[in-house]
Amino acid sequence: MSQPVIILVRPQLGENIGKTARAMLNFGLSELRLVAPRDGWPNPDAGPPAAGADQVLDQAVVFDRLEDAIADCHRVVASTMRTRGLAKPVTTPAQAAAISRQALAAGQRPAILFGSERAGLNNDEVALADTLLTIPVNPAFGSLNLAQAVIVYAYEWFKSGDDTAPLQPYTPDPPATKAEMQGLYEQGETALTERGYFRSEARREVQIRSMRTFWQNCALTSQEVQTLRGILKTLTWEKRQR
Amino acid sequence: MSQPVIILVRPQLGENIGKTARAMLNFGLSELRLVAPRDGWPNPDAGPPAAGADQVLDQAVVFDRLEDAIADCHRVVASTMRTRGLAKPVTTPAQAAAISRQALAAGQRPAILFGSERAGLNNDEVALADTLLTIPVNPAFGSLNLAQAVIVYAYEWFKSGDDTAPLQPYTPDPPATKAEMQGLYEQGETALTERGYFRSEARREVQIRSMRTFWQNCALTSQEVQTLRGILKTLTWEKRQR
Repeated sequence: MSQPVIILVRPQLGENIGKTARAMLNFGLSELRLVAPRDGWPNPDAGPPAAGADQVLDQAVVFDRLEDAIADCHRVVASTMRTRGLAKPVTTPAQAAAISRQALAAGQRPAILFGSERAGLNNDEVALADTLLTIPVNPAFGSLNLAQAVIVYAYEWFKSGDDTAPLQPYTPDPPATKAEMQGLYEQGETALTERGYFRSEARREVQIRSMRTFWQNCALTSQEVQTLRGILKTLTWEKRQR
Repeated sequence: MSQPVIILVRPQLGENIGKTARAMLNFGLSELRLVAPRDGWPNPDAGPPAAGADQVLDQAVVFDRLEDAIADCHRVVASTMRTRGLAKPVTTPAQAAAISRQALAAGQRPAILFGSERAGLNNDEVALADTLLTIPVNPAFGSLNLAQAVIVYAYEWFKSGDDTAPLQPYTPDPPATKAEMQGLYEQGETALTERGYFRSEARREVQIRSMRTFWQNCALTSQEVQTLRGILKTLTWEKRQR
């Protein structure tokens, strides 16, 4: 056992079973169980939306009863919108993922239940779970597609164990040294001075401080300073030729 | 401005635009922009998969060029699988959601770009963004459906601001008092003693400690203790009648 089991209870559309398979494999899950799928199994409608996650569909195991589907499981979480009156702990997707990892670490098999598209899990089905999973959604528009509910859990599952694929750190080119910045300032200020940009010595001081602050805040790289100095040289070349 | 703008760049299938609208509204987002949708706009294929999120489709704004679609935005994040060689910070979905909230708090308009189904965003499009968003996925099966990529971001967005809809805390019935537990123990032990369950005084002590430990670990509620005592009374009633 290295991953939680995803159990779809009375799923209606083969398309949603296929989408679930794709969402599962996107986030590293492959163990799918189906309880009493409405249109039987295998279902040709599941193939195309699986988009290549055929291994998940091929290995899916079908059960008549939910009790049998969870018989070898130790920790069962039921995904449900309605939690009122159900005397079980309610978890977020991230907490449910953590519960799954804890169970696996203890050598136990965790499972997550998702109900039918039309009405979700019924009360008897929810009663078989240890814990509830409720995805936080817009209260004014809360009906999640079956596969979308699965993907949110699967994403949190993958995220909670994502130590193999660290995100690429942002490694920009090396920043310019202060000497390089000084060189840029002096080249620019000399060019401007030669062309009479500064009307008075008093204004010159203020203007130069303002320009240096601007370039400082740009956090230029060494390469960018070189580029800017090249541009400045080109722009002032013609002038000197006259 | 109270929410980030979702921008689909050159989306191909109306179905995916509809699914995106549904995913957005599920997580409280409603501002959708479309850049050069392949099949024009409006697209009748978008309606059914939107599953009631019509307001998002009705208010969607169409642009010919990505530059125009982001013209009024201050912070642009580009969703992309490929980050190598792109000298921009790479963020997770949760970090991208945080960036969106920071921008809004500063009075700026944030946007998230998602590319076409076939090939995502091209390099010129990515270059227009400040930051990259990469969803951590199974490296062996990483092709996320367009709407699924949107839902992962939207879920993190909603989660990051989910202070209005706290999850229902688990509030079980009040636990039994120690006096109630003691009453249960005594009733049970008396019944067992009367029926000769304890073979010897030495074993009796060990067995009773073991049973009390068991019940203690059950963390019974007050109501459950009452129920158990009623069951015990019923089970021992017939015996006494004899």
